[in-house]
Amino acid sequence: MADYAVLTTVTNQPGMLFGLTRVLADHHANITYVDIIHHRDRDPEIYLEFSVDGSVDPLAGELRRISGVSSLELTPSFSKIYGKRIIIMGGGAQVGQVALGAITEADRHNIRGERISVDTIPLVGEEELASAVRAVVRLPRVRLLVLAGSIMGGDISRAVEEVRAKGLVVISLNMAGSVPDVADPVVSDPVQAGVMAVMAVADTPKFDIIPHHKPRY
Amino acid sequence: MADYAVLTTVTNQPGMLFGLTRVLADHHANITYVDIIHHRDRDPEIYLEFSVDGSVDPLAGELRRISGVSSLELTPSFSKIYGKRIIIMGGGAQVGQVALGAITEADRHNIRGERISVDTIPLVGEEELASAVRAVVRLPRVRLLVLAGSIMGGDISRAVEEVRAKGLVVISLNMAGSVPDVADPVVSDPVQAGVMAVMAVADTPKFDIIPHHKPRY
Repeated sequence: MADYAVLTTVTNQPGMLFGLTRVLADHHANITYVDIIHHRDRDPEIYLEFSVDGSVDPLAGELRRISGVSSLELTPSFSKIYGKRIIIMGGGAQVGQVALGAITEADRHNIRGERISVDTIPLVGEEELASAVRAVVRLPRVRLLVLAGSIMGGDISRAVEEVRAKGLVVISLNMAGSVPDVADPVVSDPVQAGVMAVMAVADTPKFDIIPHHKPRY
Repeated sequence: MADYAVLTTVTNQPGMLFGLTRVLADHHANITYVDIIHHRDRDPEIYLEFSVDGSVDPLAGELRRISGVSSLELTPSFSKIYGKRIIIMGGGAQVGQVALGAITEADRHNIRGERISVDTIPLVGEEELASAVRAVVRLPRVRLLVLAGSIMGGDISRAVEEVRAKGLVVISLNMAGSVPDVADPVVSDPVQAGVMAVMAVADTPKFDIIPHHKPRY
């Protein structure tokens, strides 16, 4: 099975994704990524990554002939371009410092051929943060979450337990509240937390920064 | 039309997205966002946001009964949780400083009810950066790109012209190479570039930071 990515421009009407996925299903293609891109002033685009046996040309030809598809191009895939993602969320002051450490460290790994993105959202409020934590496991390519703030607990801690049960690694800054009790490693220095987050997801280093016992740095 | 978001757990086989989108097309639902989430140790999930007339319950019932769908839940939508995105790419040193400004400013807006995420990727190399710039317009919810480095030109500049033609706002740091010539505003201080990027996409301020003439700060 070879991997392909296509970008189609389609008319803004219900059923377009259905039409495209029907052709892919007919060809036994396994869709690995899909995105609908909306534009304010022109037709939407649908982007698909998939693997399929044999040549992609007959499949691409059928996709082009679907009513409502105005153009189709083969493109490089996202996972090759943006790679793994780390998400940092919490208070702006701390999120900025964690990002600084993570970006500097990601730079060092990406120079050696990795692709690691560092994504952040500064957010305040127990309910908002708990929702954002729960939604992280639905974002594509996310490997690790860093919670950066001065106090986090309550429903945020329950959300951390849920996403950890789903396999996500969660690093917490040392802070007030119960989040440090339910996270994986707890780190006091935000810059170091960012660096460790990147080291934990990188394939380049030869050691395991997230051991099975719960460390505090 | 009311907006809904559903998260389904499905078996890992071709045709699942086709099955789900067929039911949505039958109900004339307009799909606005879709994501396939892969897991190393359990079944993949397909997440869909859509708008539809009337109650979502009969539609959700039909989706649940599709062969291969093992569970379905209604969830809050991503756009409500993570909001608009700014992407910062380039050299680690500058990306970190732009992120610091952007995250601090996003914090101030998010406290007043906005949802602005700041995403970064430190990258080196003309070809890698040009590909990443071109791919930005295929990422969901992206409003603005900041290019942060010391020298960028060649194919990166052609990529900037292409994404600007598609409506993306591109802020460039003042740097060597031709990228500052083809970008929207050019900013010398990276922290200020990050702050301006957030101001440009926020709905809270009452002024336009990206005027029609090309400013240099």
